[in-house]
Amino acid sequence: MRTLRKDIVISERSQAQFRNLTDFCVGTGRVDLAMQQEYQEQLRAVQDACHFRYIRGHGLFSDQMGICQVHKDAEGNRHTEYCFTYLDRTVDAWRETGLRPFLELGFMPAALTDSPNTIFYWNAHTAPPRDMDEWTALVKATLRHLVHRYGEEEVSLWPCEVWNEPNLSGFWENADKQKYLELYRATVLAVKEVLPGMKVGGPAICGGTGSQEWISDFLAFCRDGKIPVDFVTRHAYLGQTPERRGRYLYQQMAPVSVLIEEMRRSREIIDSFPEFRGMPMYITEFNTSYNPFCPIHDTNLNAVICAALLGSLGDVSDGYSYWTFGDVFEEQGIPPRCFHGGFGLIANGLIVKPTLWAFSFFAGLKGKCVYRDDCAVLVRRPDGGYEGVLWNLCEDGEKTLEITLTVPMEHEAAVLMERVDERTCNPLRAWHVMGEPEDLNSEQLAFLRAAGQPSAEILKAEIQDGTATVRLTLDRNALMRIRILPAERRSGAGYDYSYYCED
Amino acid sequence: MRTLRKDIVISERSQAQFRNLTDFCVGTGRVDLAMQQEYQEQLRAVQDACHFRYIRGHGLFSDQMGICQVHKDAEGNRHTEYCFTYLDRTVDAWRETGLRPFLELGFMPAALTDSPNTIFYWNAHTAPPRDMDEWTALVKATLRHLVHRYGEEEVSLWPCEVWNEPNLSGFWENADKQKYLELYRATVLAVKEVLPGMKVGGPAICGGTGSQEWISDFLAFCRDGKIPVDFVTRHAYLGQTPERRGRYLYQQMAPVSVLIEEMRRSREIIDSFPEFRGMPMYITEFNTSYNPFCPIHDTNLNAVICAALLGSLGDVSDGYSYWTFGDVFEEQGIPPRCFHGGFGLIANGLIVKPTLWAFSFFAGLKGKCVYRDDCAVLVRRPDGGYEGVLWNLCEDGEKTLEITLTVPMEHEAAVLMERVDERTCNPLRAWHVMGEPEDLNSEQLAFLRAAGQPSAEILKAEIQDGTATVRLTLDRNALMRIRILPAERRSGAGYDYSYYCED
Amino acid sequence: MRTLRKDIVISERSQAQFRNLTDFCVGTGRVDLAMQQEYQEQLRAVQDACHFRYIRGHGLFSDQMGICQVHKDAEGNRHTEYCFTYLDRTVDAWRETGLRPFLELGFMPAALTDSPNTIFYWNAHTAPPRDMDEWTALVKATLRHLVHRYGEEEVSLWPCEVWNEPNLSGFWENADKQKYLELYRATVLAVKEVLPGMKVGGPAICGGTGSQEWISDFLAFCRDGKIPVDFVTRHAYLGQTPERRGRYLYQQMAPVSVLIEEMRRSREIIDSFPEFRGMPMYITEFNTSYNPFCPIHDTNLNAVICAALLGSLGDVSDGYSYWTFGDVFEEQGIPPRCFHGGFGLIANGLIVKPTLWAFSFFAGLKGKCVYRDDCAVLVRRPDGGYEGVLWNLCEDGEKTLEITLTVPMEHEAAVLMERVDERTCNPLRAWHVMGEPEDLNSEQLAFLRAAGQPSAEILKAEIQDGTATVRLTLDRNALMRIRILPAERRSGAGYDYSYYCED
Amino acid sequence: MRTLRKDIVISERSQAQFRNLTDFCVGTGRVDLAMQQEYQEQLRAVQDACHFRYIRGHGLFSDQMGICQVHKDAEGNRHTEYCFTYLDRTVDAWRETGLRPFLELGFMPAALTDSPNTIFYWNAHTAPPRDMDEWTALVKATLRHLVHRYGEEEVSLWPCEVWNEPNLSGFWENADKQKYLELYRATVLAVKEVLPGMKVGGPAICGGTGSQEWISDFLAFCRDGKIPVDFVTRHAYLGQTPERRGRYLYQQMAPVSVLIEEMRRSREIIDSFPEFRGMPMYITEFNTSYNPFCPIHDTNLNAVICAALLGSLGDVSDGYSYWTFGDVFEEQGIPPRCFHGGFGLIANGLIVKPTLWAFSFFAGLKGKCVYRDDCAVLVRRPDGGYEGVLWNLCEDGEKTLEITLTVPMEHEAAVLMERVDERTCNPLRAWHVMGEPEDLNSEQLAFLRAAGQPSAEILKAEIQDGTATVRLTLDRNALMRIRILPAERRSGAGYDYSYYCED
Repeated sequence: MRTLRKDIVISERSQAQFRNLTDFCVGTGRVDLAMQQEYQEQLRAVQDACHFRYIRGHGLFSDQMGICQVHKDAEGNRHTEYCFTYLDRTVDAWRETGLRPFLELGFMPAALTDSPNTIFYWNAHTAPPRDMDEWTALVKATLRHLVHRYGEEEVSLWPCEVWNEPNLSGFWENADKQKYLELYRATVLAVKEVLPGMKVGGPAICGGTGSQEWISDFLAFCRDGKIPVDFVTRHAYLGQTPERRGRYLYQQMAPVSVLIEEMRRSREIIDSFPEFRGMPMYITEFNTSYNPFCPIHDTNLNAVICAALLGSLGDVSDGYSYWTFGDVFEEQGIPPRCFHGGFGLIANGLIVKPTLWAFSFFAGLKGKCVYRDDCAVLVRRPDGGYEGVLWNLCEDGEKTLEITLTVPMEHEAAVLMERVDERTCNPLRAWHVMGEPEDLNSEQLAFLRAAGQPSAEILKAEIQDGTATVRLTLDRNALMRIRILPAERRSGAGYDYSYYCED
Repeated sequence: MRTLRKDIVISERSQAQFRNLTDFCVGTGRVDLAMQQEYQEQLRAVQDACHFRYIRGHGLFSDQMGICQVHKDAEGNRHTEYCFTYLDRTVDAWRETGLRPFLELGFMPAALTDSPNTIFYWNAHTAPPRDMDEWTALVKATLRHLVHRYGEEEVSLWPCEVWNEPNLSGFWENADKQKYLELYRATVLAVKEVLPGMKVGGPAICGGTGSQEWISDFLAFCRDGKIPVDFVTRHAYLGQTPERRGRYLYQQMAPVSVLIEEMRRSREIIDSFPEFRGMPMYITEFNTSYNPFCPIHDTNLNAVICAALLGSLGDVSDGYSYWTFGDVFEEQGIPPRCFHGGFGLIANGLIVKPTLWAFSFFAGLKGKCVYRDDCAVLVRRPDGGYEGVLWNLCEDGEKTLEITLTVPMEHEAAVLMERVDERTCNPLRAWHVMGEPEDLNSEQLAFLRAAGQPSAEILKAEIQDGTATVRLTLDRNALMRIRILPAERRSGAGYDYSYYCED
Repeated sequence: MRTLRKDIVISERSQAQFRNLTDFCVGTGRVDLAMQQEYQEQLRAVQDACHFRYIRGHGLFSDQMGICQVHKDAEGNRHTEYCFTYLDRTVDAWRETGLRPFLELGFMPAALTDSPNTIFYWNAHTAPPRDMDEWTALVKATLRHLVHRYGEEEVSLWPCEVWNEPNLSGFWENADKQKYLELYRATVLAVKEVLPGMKVGGPAICGGTGSQEWISDFLAFCRDGKIPVDFVTRHAYLGQTPERRGRYLYQQMAPVSVLIEEMRRSREIIDSFPEFRGMPMYITEFNTSYNPFCPIHDTNLNAVICAALLGSLGDVSDGYSYWTFGDVFEEQGIPPRCFHGGFGLIANGLIVKPTLWAFSFFAGLKGKCVYRDDCAVLVRRPDGGYEGVLWNLCEDGEKTLEITLTVPMEHEAAVLMERVDERTCNPLRAWHVMGEPEDLNSEQLAFLRAAGQPSAEILKAEIQDGTATVRLTLDRNALMRIRILPAERRSGAGYDYSYYCED
Repeated sequence: MRTLRKDIVISERSQAQFRNLTDFCVGTGRVDLAMQQEYQEQLRAVQDACHFRYIRGHGLFSDQMGICQVHKDAEGNRHTEYCFTYLDRTVDAWRETGLRPFLELGFMPAALTDSPNTIFYWNAHTAPPRDMDEWTALVKATLRHLVHRYGEEEVSLWPCEVWNEPNLSGFWENADKQKYLELYRATVLAVKEVLPGMKVGGPAICGGTGSQEWISDFLAFCRDGKIPVDFVTRHAYLGQTPERRGRYLYQQMAPVSVLIEEMRRSREIIDSFPEFRGMPMYITEFNTSYNPFCPIHDTNLNAVICAALLGSLGDVSDGYSYWTFGDVFEEQGIPPRCFHGGFGLIANGLIVKPTLWAFSFFAGLKGKCVYRDDCAVLVRRPDGGYEGVLWNLCEDGEKTLEITLTVPMEHEAAVLMERVDERTCNPLRAWHVMGEPEDLNSEQLAFLRAAGQPSAEILKAEIQDGTATVRLTLDRNALMRIRILPAERRSGAGYDYSYYCED
């Protein structure tokens, strides 16, 4: 394998551009799953590590959430009542972990449509409403309830996105653009009627042929109709032509730069509208593969691709949301075993996947950026130390990365490293070697949980002439957090580490 | 209101018949709901008070549980895989609260039937399997998985009931008795193939015209076909002709004695088969109304009816299971507000209903029975004190009940009373006076939780001639636990309660 | 018993003076006890009900806290090291329940004095320091450590009081005023050297002969010496001449008005110094008896005395601190049984005492005061309802209090009452009737915990001509919270409470 | 560094002697510290890993526990009352983590002696009782209380040891053997009077000159006086001549074999008494150094010494108890920083030390021993796999240990390794490199906790001719758990690990 050597030299005056929006938002499976215990435990674990601020998922108006309750009276007449029992439990569960909803207004309650079209294992209805007034009544009642419960000031901070991927016929009957625009108009007006300060956006498209055109058509429609719009949303996935085997899906990944360019193009379209120049653009879903049974999601490769994305997405957008935080997820059926290629940062059984660490390490990067390239981001910490995330993504062939890092440092310093690579932090491989068991006993579970933790290494920095030099080696698909921290000796009188240990 | 006075005199030699099976089993909403946080909190609260041993509910094989997972491969071929992810979470949740499953084998996975017939908000499929072998394969695979995870010794302790209320066409297509008997035969043989020691029974019928005949036909079928059967199951509800208003259902209740007689008749049918004489009969569901939107379930009246039932059901059966422990329940849709007439012993929001106390008080009755009538059960406690449950059910007209209770007691004694009546422990009334709010703020919630706690009263027993005499008044629909405990003075030297307080 | 009838009529324009400082501060046993599990549980329970903001207790520099660690080296030389292990655990424990320290700088570490004088079971050293510089070095090192750990901004919010009750020779050797003033001077200068923004005060005296003179001497000393002082502190107890029996102490209580006048006199002394006019005066300890084995603390009488104090203390001070929140307390030895007359709002075993409810009810009184007298405080709530605390303190003879309360109310209203009186919420009496057991089994413990909860009563207000009228009866030593809240009917279609219940 | 190569070949018939008593008992700091939150958290963490059955510590009758409460009445007369408040909290805390007390009856309450002699920071009184009857009254009252609270059956399972290290004058005034024997006689008779079934033993000596003679004198005394004795206890430490620097103590360690021989000698002395042949001998304390400020306790060296001891101590004793489980410990003062050489398996701040893993790995060794030497113990697991603990203790010079391990294995197998060595699991070194900080911020704490976790490695075993061969390298002071488990492939149809990962 070839070796790439790189010297990174930081001075007191170094600076670099880097917009860190890692903690903006994260995706979730069907929103009512938030009532489940396993979901809540996974979310707590993710939040302890990543501290996301918003959460976005499908199914707000689907029947599992039960907001539209239909029943017949003694005479057989159909009555619709709104029921917010599950909505409250869902939002409460999110708020307990410090999250606010990024509301996605969809899908259609079965009661509001006559179309049989559905998507997913859980039968999400994908047709426009039979009667737009029934839909807007539902939207308004829901928002009013939220305001009653959480207060207008709070709810006004929750962004609202209209529908999901209407440019796919699976998600929106016939991918009918005109009907989507009508839905958007009616919905945004309903929202603003209840909460004028709430931010609303669309068109929530995924990529593919004609997708950029949806953005320009959407904005032209808003401009021409003087329809409110506060932000533009779209999705970003790297997966190429899929291959299916059994219930699993395999795909090669496009280069990160290709996806960044696609996003930049959307940004330019928005900015080409004088009225909308600089309007926020949110990538409300991103990931490698768009399929929840694609084994890549559980790998170290996935982690370094995400690291590369987190290093760049702030250049072309105002927020992005990994799809999804956990593996309590039912779109293609219930996950049959801990590793099955689910989207989650954490696997069922509370086994952390490598990708979680990409988000955790980036979320922790506070301070002024001093260096950024395609395998590293480094910041100067408020406490005078340095912190960085480094990764080795081998898009153009396998390599070992050897980095010599030099930072200004007057006195002794400790170098704290957390390493996530195929050898040190790879629970998928551990599970594979175990024989890919379906049902984990407590011994296996404990081992897999331990196998998902980064190795914690520490070394003394070599200090010379006011600089600390650190030599790092990253194997293929390795991810690393490094912190270089001043280490003034403070021990008690008489304490001598070297009596029993080599210094 | 008239007053009924009663003297109960207990001597050292008093004894009475009373078979206390209160803690045998309790019902639950659709079993996969066990994965929800609110469900688990309600169950913990109920178990802290009642300590049930088994739990029984519907939906083991319904699609929400996701055991039968169907997916298409690249060529579009349908494949069935078994997935036990949710089963494991469900059973684990029960076991964490000390419960074992009383397995109900049903309903039909959508994938195993072509019939469109379903029941409930959550679309339980009610038709026989397209292919009986697919069904028995499912049953066997499920049991094998349980054995693998929990061990054969443990799983053999879990009773198995085949289907639910097949004598109703809503639950079993056409209420086809012959098809049920075939289902039973195939199922029991499948179970015994995997776990010869597992106990299996049926026919799980509800009451109504022809129901007793189902029992005799079922037993004759087993006898004639030499088909294994370990116990007989049936249900017991008191609700009479219903009246529907909106989504709510109202019904008058039959007298408790009528229901007891109906159960006794079933018992006699079983015993009329020489082969099955003395075989256990379990009442796998009982309650007042059979509807989850019947307001009676939240009342003090419900509590005293249940007290009367708990006093008598042990005479005519070998176990009974209140339907259900909590209000996380979806059969007729999602409960829209805390009080809506749900079955639960505890309401959503963790508000305890009066009926919980009937179960809690009875579950605590340990020791030798010294007295039983239609408004009281009293036992001699292992520690030498006395304990009783008393209630005032006014089936034949409102009355106040005044009881003078005399028990043997040498020295000082404390009388501990916990009172649950319409004035002291009636959260439904509190909610009604609050205006029946849909969404409770934290102040309302705290008050309702407090309003669901019994008042704790204490008094010194009057001791005379080796007996303690206690006078008790029970208003309409009052329920009370009383404990008379020896109270030897043990205070520290110099401690004088009477300095600041009247003795 | 005589009956006192009172009409309270509130109009839209009613207002009254009432300064509610209930949540300002609460006392604690020796501060290092905060590391104990039982202490933390009691504190959580108290904070859930009362939400205090500061906590103050003795022993910061006592040996149990271990800040001054002395050890000998190989040659036998004495070395002093500061050790903040326990200080950190203590402060962390407080902060976890939302509390900030109100620092009391004392007592003397054994290592800093040669005097054998100590106080309490735990041997608090009460002499001045051998060398004032050793003392100020300790103070400064401690504050520097706190700043390092919690930040300057945060620690500057923690008030600092110098020593405790130096006007008693038990607490300060010889009650030597001159030496106290020297201690104060050295200490305040040390504090301000580290944290100029920290507020510092004294002289932390208790009442008794000559106590007011301490205040004037202290202020004159500060004025003349230009010594910083930010607030004045003193204590307030109602107990009169004590009578001791065994380890218990009994005393009659002075009228509340006498104590208020004593505080007012201190206030006037402060204001008589032009330089210090309006300077905050904090009552850093108050209670009925000053002894932790005085049975009054566990009674309902104690609760209503405290209610009367909470109604008035805001007139004469700027903050007050009940001594103490819980019964993890060792000054006179370890509490041998749950009820022993300890200071706590909550007894060992997490049994709530009546007095907790006085603090909880007052702490909840938010809004504009509309009425205050010697048995009631009423406020208009932000939500348009009314809330009040009422009590029946019988200083001039037993009476029943009958109150007719009228408030403006347009529509239906619910009256929520929580009653704490000798019959409904009196765990001490329950324990007494049980025989005053030393060791509680789980059944007894559960009953006593239930017996410490207020009864939750509710009734519909009678509405007439835009006013709601409520009739209340308070027995001797009764305490009550009442809330009158609008109750608009919001129930679902078809729901009929009256089908099974009388309305 | 030299390398030692070793081949270990296991066959189906292999067997070896190994008596695993790892989980028998563990030591604790002063018993009342069990009331502290940090103590309880450390104990839970230790128990999750090690599952000890008994716990033993000093101070049952010391004043911090407060069982002997002395107070004066109004006339100044001294009264003694027993107070079990803290005893109950202490025992409850242990029982909540699954532990039973191994009672050590000592030290002397201040109230029962006139001697000023004390030991430790917390002033444990070390003199015989003024009046033996006061002492036995205390012992009997305490046992009676325990029986009242926990039941006779339970308390009879708790062994009782009389005093601690009476052969040291620091612990027992003048190390007076005759007075100890008198204490033993009086105490054992008192215990047996209350609980005839309780097991009692002594003389609880430490090693050193004349210590073995104490055992023979003790047994002769019992034999001659027909005094009950159920077991013999002694201590075992490896530390040689100490050197003190500041408050820290340094010592070289004797070889493990020397200590084993010393224990064997004690065993032989017991067996030389025909009456006592085979009587249990418990090592109620063992460790490397006997000083709680000796830095060795925090090292990897300590872990491998303990591994060697755990491999051998079962040959010469019937139970042993590591001194101590955690670092909440005050004998020589309060620990000033996380690493200070405390005895604990876990450091303050919940940082796991390497030694914990020696206990955890050994505690998990279930099954038939197939191999044991001075660096490895291997067992055949009940599930057909193999499990072992290996270590590299370099008593005779540094070396690397290379082990080739061969076990019978038919099919695929996974090799799970957990490695604890100076590079991979060494929180002490991490703290040292950080600059030995006194006060840890949350970032440092998180890193140190991670640094205390073993690395979890996994590899596929090479299978050939029905055997699996594994090659292992252990660096100096390395400790390792290895599990070789059958790994039958069970993955779902279509799942292909190798698509994204190298197999």
